[in-house]
Amino acid sequence: MSQATMTGVINGVDVDRMGTTIQAVQQNTSLATFKFRAKNRWIGGGHNRSTIHSFYGAGQEYTTRKKPFVLDSDEPPVLLGTDQGPNPYECVLHALAAGLTTSLVYYAAARGIHLESVESTLEGDLDVQGFLGLSDKVRRGYKEIRVHFAIKSNAPAEELSELIRFSPVLDIVSNPVPVSIQIDKL
Amino acid sequence: MSQATMTGVINGVDVDRMGTTIQAVQQNTSLATFKFRAKNRWIGGGHNRSTIHSFYGAGQEYTTRKKPFVLDSDEPPVLLGTDQGPNPYECVLHALAAGLTTSLVYYAAARGIHLESVESTLEGDLDVQGFLGLSDKVRRGYKEIRVHFAIKSNAPAEELSELIRFSPVLDIVSNPVPVSIQIDKL
Repeated sequence: MSQATMTGVINGVDVDRMGTTIQAVQQNTSLATFKFRAKNRWIGGGHNRSTIHSFYGAGQEYTTRKKPFVLDSDEPPVLLGTDQGPNPYECVLHALAAGLTTSLVYYAAARGIHLESVESTLEGDLDVQGFLGLSDKVRRGYKEIRVHFAIKSNAPAEELSELIRFSPVLDIVSNPVPVSIQIDKL
Repeated sequence: MSQATMTGVINGVDVDRMGTTIQAVQQNTSLATFKFRAKNRWIGGGHNRSTIHSFYGAGQEYTTRKKPFVLDSDEPPVLLGTDQGPNPYECVLHALAAGLTTSLVYYAAARGIHLESVESTLEGDLDVQGFLGLSDKVRRGYKEIRVHFAIKSNAPAEELSELIRFSPVLDIVSNPVPVSIQIDKL
């Protein structure tokens, strides 16, 4: 993306502003540091709710969103929930789909590639023996995730595939991320 | 969870049904196979939308949800979007929060541990030099995620911490998941 030489708005992305952003980060790499956040509250059973509001980035706190985004999660009845929202594994697929699509769209804009439409379907294999603690040989998380994109664009599929793979969420899912968990009793 | 000997409803989870489910899976492990799905459509710029509806599990297709769950994602203006939804990295945090909370609640129910309240705050460090392709040394995804739980319960923090760590989403984020990506040009 660092070679962005296009101008104007491509794929709905302001490529001029993208160029300015890249230059600013190159001159001061501390501007590249972002801290994203979520708060979650258990409601009952499998039902819980996240609120997403502020974040830190480009050297400052952003509290400019007028109200927080609110996302519910729950399990379906077959997994003892009440279906008040997609379950946590489905939310992972949403995050991955959104991340892959955004990478494609932004990198395509930087290269001057116009996209007409982008759709994706994702499927992940989960063996609940892992979660239920019934087998040490079965992993708890997804064994595999398959993503299928259908894209309308003049660019060759090989180049589109390359752009999709720049996604930070693909990195998060494909590679280990250190997670520290602290618990305070109230 | 396989040692669940409680009965009734604990933490909003039907522990009798949980026991029946575990027995059924032990007798026929193919019932443990689940396939979760998401469809995503690009709307413009950083804005895209997932719909989550059917899934496969416990030996059958589930199309019983009356309507799909709809989740938007977008980037904030500082990342060249229009803030129509949480961004993909914030969606990862929601999935992780929901997954950790559900594991805690279900495992606690199986052990007869009553929870009064569960809240969590999550923060992840992302250096956008990785995504922008400005440095090969900076990873694209989260460098680290910190989770802080505040829990009201009689159980010791050590035991609650153990239950949280059974989460399949924690496994997905902490360990590599194979992701295959196929692209069809329309």
